[in-house]
Amino acid sequence: MGMSYLVYPGAHHTRFHHALGCLHIMQKAVQTLRFKGVEISNNEENALYIAILLHDIGHGPFSHAMEHSIVEEVHHEQLSLLFMEQLNKEFNGQLSLAIQVFKGEYHRKFMLQLISSQLDMDRMDYLKRDSFYSGVAEGNINSERLIQMMNVDNDVLVIEEKGIYSVEKFLVARRLMYWQAYLHKTSVVGELILTKILKRAKELVQNGIQLEASKPLSYFLENKVTLEDFNENVLQKFSYLDDYDVLSAIKAWQFHDDYVLSNLCRMIINRDLLKIKMLDEKPSKELVKSYKQKFINLTKLSEKEVAYFVFKGSLKNQAYNKQSEPIHIYKKDKSIEDVVEASDQLHLKALSKQVTKYYICFPKVILES
Amino acid sequence: MGMSYLVYPGAHHTRFHHALGCLHIMQKAVQTLRFKGVEISNNEENALYIAILLHDIGHGPFSHAMEHSIVEEVHHEQLSLLFMEQLNKEFNGQLSLAIQVFKGEYHRKFMLQLISSQLDMDRMDYLKRDSFYSGVAEGNINSERLIQMMNVDNDVLVIEEKGIYSVEKFLVARRLMYWQAYLHKTSVVGELILTKILKRAKELVQNGIQLEASKPLSYFLENKVTLEDFNENVLQKFSYLDDYDVLSAIKAWQFHDDYVLSNLCRMIINRDLLKIKMLDEKPSKELVKSYKQKFINLTKLSEKEVAYFVFKGSLKNQAYNKQSEPIHIYKKDKSIEDVVEASDQLHLKALSKQVTKYYICFPKVILES
Amino acid sequence: MGMSYLVYPGAHHTRFHHALGCLHIMQKAVQTLRFKGVEISNNEENALYIAILLHDIGHGPFSHAMEHSIVEEVHHEQLSLLFMEQLNKEFNGQLSLAIQVFKGEYHRKFMLQLISSQLDMDRMDYLKRDSFYSGVAEGNINSERLIQMMNVDNDVLVIEEKGIYSVEKFLVARRLMYWQAYLHKTSVVGELILTKILKRAKELVQNGIQLEASKPLSYFLENKVTLEDFNENVLQKFSYLDDYDVLSAIKAWQFHDDYVLSNLCRMIINRDLLKIKMLDEKPSKELVKSYKQKFINLTKLSEKEVAYFVFKGSLKNQAYNKQSEPIHIYKKDKSIEDVVEASDQLHLKALSKQVTKYYICFPKVILES
Amino acid sequence: MGMSYLVYPGAHHTRFHHALGCLHIMQKAVQTLRFKGVEISNNEENALYIAILLHDIGHGPFSHAMEHSIVEEVHHEQLSLLFMEQLNKEFNGQLSLAIQVFKGEYHRKFMLQLISSQLDMDRMDYLKRDSFYSGVAEGNINSERLIQMMNVDNDVLVIEEKGIYSVEKFLVARRLMYWQAYLHKTSVVGELILTKILKRAKELVQNGIQLEASKPLSYFLENKVTLEDFNENVLQKFSYLDDYDVLSAIKAWQFHDDYVLSNLCRMIINRDLLKIKMLDEKPSKELVKSYKQKFINLTKLSEKEVAYFVFKGSLKNQAYNKQSEPIHIYKKDKSIEDVVEASDQLHLKALSKQVTKYYICFPKVILES
Repeated sequence: MGMSYLVYPGAHHTRFHHALGCLHIMQKAVQTLRFKGVEISNNEENALYIAILLHDIGHGPFSHAMEHSIVEEVHHEQLSLLFMEQLNKEFNGQLSLAIQVFKGEYHRKFMLQLISSQLDMDRMDYLKRDSFYSGVAEGNINSERLIQMMNVDNDVLVIEEKGIYSVEKFLVARRLMYWQAYLHKTSVVGELILTKILKRAKELVQNGIQLEASKPLSYFLENKVTLEDFNENVLQKFSYLDDYDVLSAIKAWQFHDDYVLSNLCRMIINRDLLKIKMLDEKPSKELVKSYKQKFINLTKLSEKEVAYFVFKGSLKNQAYNKQSEPIHIYKKDKSIEDVVEASDQLHLKALSKQVTKYYICFPKVILES
Repeated sequence: MGMSYLVYPGAHHTRFHHALGCLHIMQKAVQTLRFKGVEISNNEENALYIAILLHDIGHGPFSHAMEHSIVEEVHHEQLSLLFMEQLNKEFNGQLSLAIQVFKGEYHRKFMLQLISSQLDMDRMDYLKRDSFYSGVAEGNINSERLIQMMNVDNDVLVIEEKGIYSVEKFLVARRLMYWQAYLHKTSVVGELILTKILKRAKELVQNGIQLEASKPLSYFLENKVTLEDFNENVLQKFSYLDDYDVLSAIKAWQFHDDYVLSNLCRMIINRDLLKIKMLDEKPSKELVKSYKQKFINLTKLSEKEVAYFVFKGSLKNQAYNKQSEPIHIYKKDKSIEDVVEASDQLHLKALSKQVTKYYICFPKVILES
Repeated sequence: MGMSYLVYPGAHHTRFHHALGCLHIMQKAVQTLRFKGVEISNNEENALYIAILLHDIGHGPFSHAMEHSIVEEVHHEQLSLLFMEQLNKEFNGQLSLAIQVFKGEYHRKFMLQLISSQLDMDRMDYLKRDSFYSGVAEGNINSERLIQMMNVDNDVLVIEEKGIYSVEKFLVARRLMYWQAYLHKTSVVGELILTKILKRAKELVQNGIQLEASKPLSYFLENKVTLEDFNENVLQKFSYLDDYDVLSAIKAWQFHDDYVLSNLCRMIINRDLLKIKMLDEKPSKELVKSYKQKFINLTKLSEKEVAYFVFKGSLKNQAYNKQSEPIHIYKKDKSIEDVVEASDQLHLKALSKQVTKYYICFPKVILES
Repeated sequence: MGMSYLVYPGAHHTRFHHALGCLHIMQKAVQTLRFKGVEISNNEENALYIAILLHDIGHGPFSHAMEHSIVEEVHHEQLSLLFMEQLNKEFNGQLSLAIQVFKGEYHRKFMLQLISSQLDMDRMDYLKRDSFYSGVAEGNINSERLIQMMNVDNDVLVIEEKGIYSVEKFLVARRLMYWQAYLHKTSVVGELILTKILKRAKELVQNGIQLEASKPLSYFLENKVTLEDFNENVLQKFSYLDDYDVLSAIKAWQFHDDYVLSNLCRMIINRDLLKIKMLDEKPSKELVKSYKQKFINLTKLSEKEVAYFVFKGSLKNQAYNKQSEPIHIYKKDKSIEDVVEASDQLHLKALSKQVTKYYICFPKVILES
C-alpha cells in the first residue's frame, strides 16, 4: 500500500503476506473448480500456484515510486517474468508451464484469468487484505463467496448468475478502496514525495555528488537501467533491494547538504508533508506559476529545483473497464453475458465510467507568505 | 427477517436484539454529536433513547405477514405509537417528548431523522445485524464511521463530505441485502405462505370452524380488527402475541381437516415450500390460469381455494429514494447537497432508480403433471 | 444453553446450528486425519457424519429441565439412539455403522472419541459457539488448531505434543464457560424454575386438573413415561415437541388459577425470578426451614407447595476428569501420555479437581418480610 | 515481538501500534473508573495518557537483543525515563506529573498500577495484539471486560469479584503466549543470533575493523555506552536508531569477510537458523564441549569464535508472580484478597510456579558430521 501507513498506521502488512494470501485463495479456487467438474491436472495446478505466488516478485520496494524514478519505465510484470525465468533455470524447467500461463500463451485461458484479470486472485486478496489492515471497512469483499460462484465454460472463467451481487459488491469495494485508501490524498502526496526523493538522488549521483546508500541502491542511482539492462547480474542486484535500503537512505539523506534532497526526506521522516489540494478541474498554469514564484521568493531555489516542491497532476480510477476483457456471468440458460449487461440496474454501467481527479502540491509555508 | 431463516439458518436473531442495538448506536450518535458541539439536553437525549428503543414495538410476530392477513391494514408504526402512549400513561408523561419526536412534531428535525429517515439508527442496526447473522457479507456496513461523519446543521442531520463513500457503501449494501436476503425468493415464498395460512385460518374461523390457537391469537382470528378497534384491551391482547402463538398454531394446524390450511402449514413445518419463479416481466394471465387449472385437475379444489396455491405478485426495491427527504452532505464550504448530487459518479443516480421484479408461485407437483 | 438468554440475550442460537457446526468440524477432522495418513473409508466417513449430526437428536426442548420433570430419568443419549434406530429402518440400514460407532461397538475407537470423549467435536463446537453468541469471550477456543493437532495411533485419538497448549486452553475455557455461562446463577435459577413448572403441571394434570397445552405436550403430562414406554408412537409424539410447545404453555399457564403454577410461569415470562444465593458451604436445614416458614406466613401455602419456591441444591464442575478416558498426548518419541502428565505444570492437575458450589433459592419478597 | 515473524509471518506490527493501543485502552479505563465514582482530575488523566504513550519509548530496535550486546545493561525503562525528562524540558514541564507517576512517586498508587503492574494496560494491549497478529488464538484476552471490572479502593487498583474468571483467563493466556510465541524456540534462536551478530560487530569495530553501518549505529558500535553516558547528545543518537539501521547493516554484513559475522547474518537473511533443542534439564558441559569440538573440526574456528555458534541457556516464565504486588480482588463484602486466594481452585496457585526450560544451540551441519 505504498505510503498509506501515513494515513492508516495499521496498513503495515507486506508483499510476502499478499503472496501467501493469493496462494491460499488460489488453492480454494482450484478445489472449487474441481468440485464442479472442471478438470485441472496436477501440472496445471502447480503452474497456477507458482504463477500466483510469483506474480508480484518483480515489484521493487515502493514499486510505483521506483518505476517513475530510478529505473526507466520498467514495468514490474516484466521483472516478475525475468525472475521466473531465472528460477526456471535453477529449478530445471519446473516453472515452464507457470511461465507459459503467465505470458498468456497457454490455451486454457481461465488459468491466466485466475492470475490476471478483472476478477483475479490478486485483486481478491489485496482488496480484502488492505481493507482489513487499513480499517477501511468499505473495501471488505466476500472473496469466499466469489470463489464459490466461479466456474469454467469453454476454458473461460465465469461467475454463476446468483453470484452477480457479489461481483457488484466487489466492484463497488474496489472503487471505494481507490478513493479512500490507494488514492487518499495523503497516500498520494507521500508517494509523490518519495518519487521526487529518488529522482533527486539519482540526479545528484549522476552529477558526481556522493550519497550514503547501500551497495544495491547505489548501483541503481549510478546507472541508467532500462529493461534491456536486466541481465542476471543486475537482476540479482535488484533482488537485494528492499524497503530497508530505501528508508535507511532517506534517514541518512535528511542530513545531506542538498536543500532539495534533505527537505524532501525530512518530510517523510517527520510526516510533515507537502500540502495537497484535490480539485475537480485541472489547476491553471497561472496558479502553479504563482505558487512556484512564492516559494522561489522564500527560498531562492532555481526553477528546476522548485519543481520538486510545487507540481500538479491527475488521478484516474475506473472500477470496471469495459474495454478490457469483461467479467463473464454464466446464466441459468448456460448463455454468457458481460456483468454490466446482466445486472438489473444502470448501477454497473455507472461504475465503468472513468473518474478523474486533479491535484496540486506545494509547501505549506507558501500559504502563510 | 421474517422467514429468511429458511434460507439462512443463522438468521435467528430477535427484534429485542435489534432494539438494544439501535439504543446502543443511538448512544454513540449522541456522544459524537455532542463532541462536535451540537447541544442536546438530557431530556432530548432520553427522548431519543426511548423513541428508538420503542420504534418497532408495534410489530407483531411475523409482522408483514400479519398486516396483510389478520389485522386490517394496521401499520406497525401506528401501533408503536399506541404502545408509547399507553406507556406514557403508566409512566406519568415521561415519554411525552419521545412521542412528540416520533410523530415529527418536535422542532429539532434531526432528532426524528436519527429515528426515522434514509440514514437512521434503525437501518444502520438492522443492515449490519442481518448481514452478520445471515452471513450475507455484502450487507455489512461501517456504522461506526457513518456515525462519526454525522453532524447537525440548522437542526438538520448531515453527513460530512469525507463520509460520502461510506454513504455510498451503505446504499449499495442496502440494495444488496434486499435482493440477497429480504427479497430472496425463498424468504419471499415463505412469507407469502405464512400470510396465506393466517388468511385461511381467519376465513375458517369466521365461518364457524374451530381452530386450536392460543387465546390472544384466537381473538384476532375471531374479530375483524382495524386501527380504530385498538383500545387498551385490544392493545394488551396484541401485546401477548408473539412467534410462539403463531408457530404453535401452525404446528397444530398441520393436522387439521381443511386441505388448504393443513397443506400450507406442512409446507412451513417441513420446509417444503411452493415453487417460486422470479421473472423480469409480469407473468401472463394465461400462465396463471393454466397453472391453476392443472392444480384443480389434481386436487378438485375450488377456484377460491386454488388461489392459496397459485398466485403472482411483484417485488420492488429502491436503494435510495429521491422523492423522500434526501441524505444531506455537508461540504467543506458549509453548503449542503443531496448525496446523489455530491457524488463523483452517476453511480448513486443509478441507485435511486426503482427495480421491480415479478414472481409466480405454484405447487411443485404441477410441473410433473 | 437452556435459560442462559436470561443473562446473555445474544445466546439465542439453536441445537440445529450446533448440529450443523459439529458436522462441519467433523469434515475438517476427517480431512486432517486422512492428510496425515489415517485411513478412513467412505463408509466410515459417512458413519462419522451421521453420528455427529444426530448425536443430540434425543434432546427434547429445554432438555435438562424435562429430564428431571416430565419424563422419568430418560437420558437424551438413549433417545438419540432410539431415533437413529428408527431412521435406520426408514433408510434401510444405511445408519447401521453410525449406530455401531455411537454405541461404542466399533473396533476403531477413535471414531467414537471424535463423537463423544473429553475432546470431541461436540464440545469443540458448543464451547466456541456458546462463547460467541453469549459474548463470554473467556470460552473461545481454537478448534481449528486442535483439529490440526489431532492424529490417530493404534486406532486411538491423540493430540500431537506441540498442541498441548491448545488443549490446556480448551480445558480452561471449558471451566470458565461453566462458571460464567452454563452455571451462571441466573441461568441456573431459570432452569430450576422451568423444571418446577413442568413438575407442577404434571402434578396438576395427574390430579385431573385441565391445562392448556399442545397435544404432544399434553400426552407427556398425562402419562408417566419411562424409557421402556418409548415405542415408535411415543417417539413420534416426542419428536413433535419443541420450545414452542413449552413456551406457549407457560404463556397460557401464567393466567391459570393454581397459585404455584401461575406464579412460577410469570417469573419466566416477566424475567422476575426467584432470588438465588451461591454459597461455598451447604446451606443449613434451619435456614431453609426459616425461609419456608416466612413464605408460608405470607402466602398460606402448604408445605408441599412452598417447596416449589424455597429449595437448595449444589452445582459441580470438573474441567478434566482423570477417571474418564484421558486426552492422549502423542510425544515426539511416539510414546503416549495423559495430558495432565505431559504438561509442564501443576496447572492441569488443578483443573482435574472437582469444584462444588451450593445454592439456595427463595422468593425475593421474604427478604422484606 | 522481536524475531517472532520468523515463525508467525503475520506478527509484523510495530511498537507504534502498541503505544496507540495502550493509550486507547487507558482512555477506556479512565472512563470506566470515573463512571464508578473514582475521581481523576484532568491533570491526572493527562499524566496517565502521557505515561502510557511513552512507557516503551526507551526501547531501541530489537530491544532485548541490543540490551545484551551494544549497550551495557541499560534497561529500556531507564531510557524511557530519560526521554520523558528530555521531552519535559521541551514542553516546559507539562510531563512532570506523568514522570512522577512513572517513577512511582505519586501518592495515588493505582495510577502506576495502570501503567506498570501485573494487570496493566501495557500487558492487556500486547497480549491481545500479539495474539491477533501472530494468530496464536490461545493468547486472546477479554481486555474490555477486564477494564469494566476494574475499580479503585483506597487509591489501589482492584478487580471486582465477578471479574475473577477474566483474570484467570488473562493469566493463562499470558502463560500460553510465552510458550507459544515469545519463547517459541524459533523466536528464541532468532533473537539469540541477532544478539550474537551485534556482539560480534561491536567486537570487530573495537578491534579496528570497518563495518558498513548507519551513523547512529556506528556510534554505538564504536563506543562503550553505559547508562551514565546517556547525555542529551547520546540520547538523540539513540533516538535515530530503528529497525532499518539494524537490518540494513545485517544485509550488508552478510557479505563481510569475517566468517562469524557473515555466517550469522546470512542465517537471519535466509531464515536458515542455528538448530535449537529445548530440554527439561540443563545440557551437560560435555555435550556443549563435544558440539564445539565438532564445529571446530569442520571450520577451524577459535574457541572464542565457536562460542558464537554453539551455546546453551535457559528460559523462565511465571504467569503470575506471588512475590510482586498481587492482583487484588475486591469482594462483595468490600474486603480485598490476592487473586490466588480468591480463586475457587488450586489452578492459580499452579500458575504462580516458575517454569524453567533449557536449550542448546548449534549449527545443523554438526549433526551430519
